[in-house]
Amino acid sequence: MVANYLMSVNQHNALVAAAFAKRGFSEDECQAAARFCELAAWHGIKTHNAIKALHLDELFGSQAGGCVPNATIDVLPSKFKAVQKWNANRKLGQATAFAAMDACCAMADEFGVSIVSVDNAFHYLWGGGYVIDAAKRGYIAYTCCTAALAEVVPFMGKFPTLGTNPHSWAFPTQDHIGFPICIDWATSTVAMGRVQQFIREGKQLPPGSGVDEKGQDTTDPNKVKALLPFGAHKGYGLSLLNELYAAYAGGSLPTLRSRWDQKPNGEKCTPNFFFQCIKPEALACDDFAASRDQQANVKAVLNDILGHGNADTGAMLPGQIEANNAALSAQHGGLLFTEAELAEFEHIAEEADVALDRAGLKQIEV
Amino acid sequence: MVANYLMSVNQHNALVAAAFAKRGFSEDECQAAARFCELAAWHGIKTHNAIKALHLDELFGSQAGGCVPNATIDVLPSKFKAVQKWNANRKLGQATAFAAMDACCAMADEFGVSIVSVDNAFHYLWGGGYVIDAAKRGYIAYTCCTAALAEVVPFMGKFPTLGTNPHSWAFPTQDHIGFPICIDWATSTVAMGRVQQFIREGKQLPPGSGVDEKGQDTTDPNKVKALLPFGAHKGYGLSLLNELYAAYAGGSLPTLRSRWDQKPNGEKCTPNFFFQCIKPEALACDDFAASRDQQANVKAVLNDILGHGNADTGAMLPGQIEANNAALSAQHGGLLFTEAELAEFEHIAEEADVALDRAGLKQIEV
Repeated sequence: MVANYLMSVNQHNALVAAAFAKRGFSEDECQAAARFCELAAWHGIKTHNAIKALHLDELFGSQAGGCVPNATIDVLPSKFKAVQKWNANRKLGQATAFAAMDACCAMADEFGVSIVSVDNAFHYLWGGGYVIDAAKRGYIAYTCCTAALAEVVPFMGKFPTLGTNPHSWAFPTQDHIGFPICIDWATSTVAMGRVQQFIREGKQLPPGSGVDEKGQDTTDPNKVKALLPFGAHKGYGLSLLNELYAAYAGGSLPTLRSRWDQKPNGEKCTPNFFFQCIKPEALACDDFAASRDQQANVKAVLNDILGHGNADTGAMLPGQIEANNAALSAQHGGLLFTEAELAEFEHIAEEADVALDRAGLKQIEV
Repeated sequence: MVANYLMSVNQHNALVAAAFAKRGFSEDECQAAARFCELAAWHGIKTHNAIKALHLDELFGSQAGGCVPNATIDVLPSKFKAVQKWNANRKLGQATAFAAMDACCAMADEFGVSIVSVDNAFHYLWGGGYVIDAAKRGYIAYTCCTAALAEVVPFMGKFPTLGTNPHSWAFPTQDHIGFPICIDWATSTVAMGRVQQFIREGKQLPPGSGVDEKGQDTTDPNKVKALLPFGAHKGYGLSLLNELYAAYAGGSLPTLRSRWDQKPNGEKCTPNFFFQCIKPEALACDDFAASRDQQANVKAVLNDILGHGNADTGAMLPGQIEANNAALSAQHGGLLFTEAELAEFEHIAEEADVALDRAGLKQIEV
C-alpha cells in the first residue's frame, strides 16, 4: 500500500494548461497537452505524464528549439485520397497527434483504412494514449514514431543509431471485454530510464539489454552506454520500421535527431509520426462461425486464447493493466499521484503561478 | 562447401505445376504455385519451397479438406474504397495471395494505402515472397496471417492457443541498396521444425523457446510440448495482432484452426490473410534534408544506421541474406537444391508423372 494524492481532472488539467501557457503555447496546444497528460495519468502511465511532458519540453522542446509554440500545421496537397501528409512545423506533439488521429479516423470512415504521415514533429510522449482514444471511438488504430534520441544499437552492431522507436496498436474491444486491447511498447529491451533505476537499486540487467563502451553485451547497468533491441533481429526489424516510415516521410539521419547543437547546415533533427486507422467493418468478410456477429466473434477468439487454463497462470490481454489503472482512477474520481510526483507538481505549479494546496488533496492508499 | 543441384526455373516450374495439376488444381493455381515456389527457392528459403508446399497440401490442404482446387474467390461488396474483403473459399494460398497483393497494389495507386482482408483462406507459405514481389514493383508492402496450428502459448499462459503467426514487411529499396528490405519472421522464438532439428542434433534450445507438458519453460527439445512467443509480452502482442485481424475478418477459434477432424457443426477451421500496401510517394512530406530526394533520403538514413562501425561488426539490413541467395541463383542461372531436396523432388516428379533426370543436372559447390 502506497499513499497517493488524488487530484481532480479539472485541477490537474488547469495546472498543466497553465504551465504550457507560461511557456508560450497557444490555448489549443495547452488544452491538448492537458488532455493528453490526463489520459496518461488516468491510465497510470507514470513514465509519460505531465511531469515528463514538461521535462521533455525543457530538454528538447520549446526551451531547446525542437518545439515551436503556436506553430501551424501545413496539410500538404496530395493526390492519394486515404493518406494525408503533414508538416507539423514542430508544433507541440500532443496537439499534432490528437489532430492527426482525428484526421485519420475521418478518412477511415470513408476509405476503410487511412494514414497520416507527419514530418517536422515534436515528441508525442505515449503512443498508447492516442490509439486507446481512437479505439474508444471504434477504430483499429496504430501509431509509431522515431524516438527522440539514437540510443539503440542495431542487431550485431556496436554503436547506437536507432531510437527506442515504439509501436502502439489498439482495438475497439471495450464493449465486449471492458477495455480496448492496447499493444504498446518500445523496441529496446529496456528504456534508458530503467537502466538508471537498476543503477539506483544495485541490480543487474537482463541479458540483451545493453552494451558497454566497446559495444559488448553487458548486464552491469553502470557500464551500459547504449541499449539493445528486444528479441535480437526481430526487435531490430521493428525498430527499423519506424526509421523507414520516417525516412520516406522526410526524417533525416537518426544520429542527428534532437541534437540541435550538432545540426549541420541544411540538415534536420526532428522526429516523425505515423498514424493509421482501420474501420473494423471494412475487414468483416461476413462469414462468422456459429452465427456470431463481428464483436461476438472477436470475443470468442479472445476467450479461446485466454482459455484452456491460460488466464489461471497469469496470461492477460495487453491493455489490461492500463484498464485496471483507469478503473482505479474512475473509482476515486480523479488522478492518483505519489508523494514524489506531487512534489514535482508543486514545482510545476510554482513555475505556472498556480496555487496547489497539498493539504487540500485527499490521500488514497493503493 | 556443399554440393547442390542446379535446376532451371523452367524445369522446376513445370515440375511443380504438374504436381499441383495432378492433385486437381486449375491452370492458374498451378502457375501461381510454381511461381511462388520459384520465388522461395530463388531466395534460398529452404523451409517454404515446393517440397513444403506439396507436403502442406497433403497435411492440411486438398488432401485434407483445408484447400479446394479450382475454387473461385468472392470479392465481397463494400462501401469502403481502399479496403477489399474476400472470401477465398479455400482456394490455393499462393494463388489467393498473389491476387490479393495485386489488388492491394492497384488500390494503393489511387488511395495511397490499401488493405485486402481474406477469409476462408489456405496457407500461403512464406509471406516474405509476396511483400518482396510487391516491393519490387515499388510498394511498401505488409502481410500477416494466422498460422495453421495453435502451437504457441500466450505470455504467462501454459496452453498453446496462438499460431506462430508471422509478420512480413518489405520496402522498395532495391534501387538504392540493391535489394528490398524485408522484415519477415514468426512470432514464436523458434518454429516447431527447429525443435525437431535440436532433438536430432542433441542440442539445448535457447531459454524462452518452449514449454513442457506442465506449461513450464524448458530448454530440453525432447520435452517441448508448445512454443513460446519471442520477447515475452512484446512477441505475444505481435502474435495477438494476427489473431485480431483474423477475428475481425471472420477467423474463428485459434485452437480449432486446421483441425478439421475436431470441427463442431457451424464452426470454421480456416486461416485468414491480411495484406496492406502503401505508395511511398503518399508519405513524402517534401522537406527532405540536404536537398535529397525521397530515395536518397532513405539511403542516407540506412547508411547512418549501418555506419559508425556497425556494419564492421556484422550488422546488416533485413533481407540481405535472401538477397545474397537470390544473387547466387542469378549467378548460376537457376535454383539450387541439396541432395536431400533433390530426392524429394524425385518423389514429386514420380507422383506427377514427370521425368526428372538427376544426371542431367549440373552440380554446384556453394
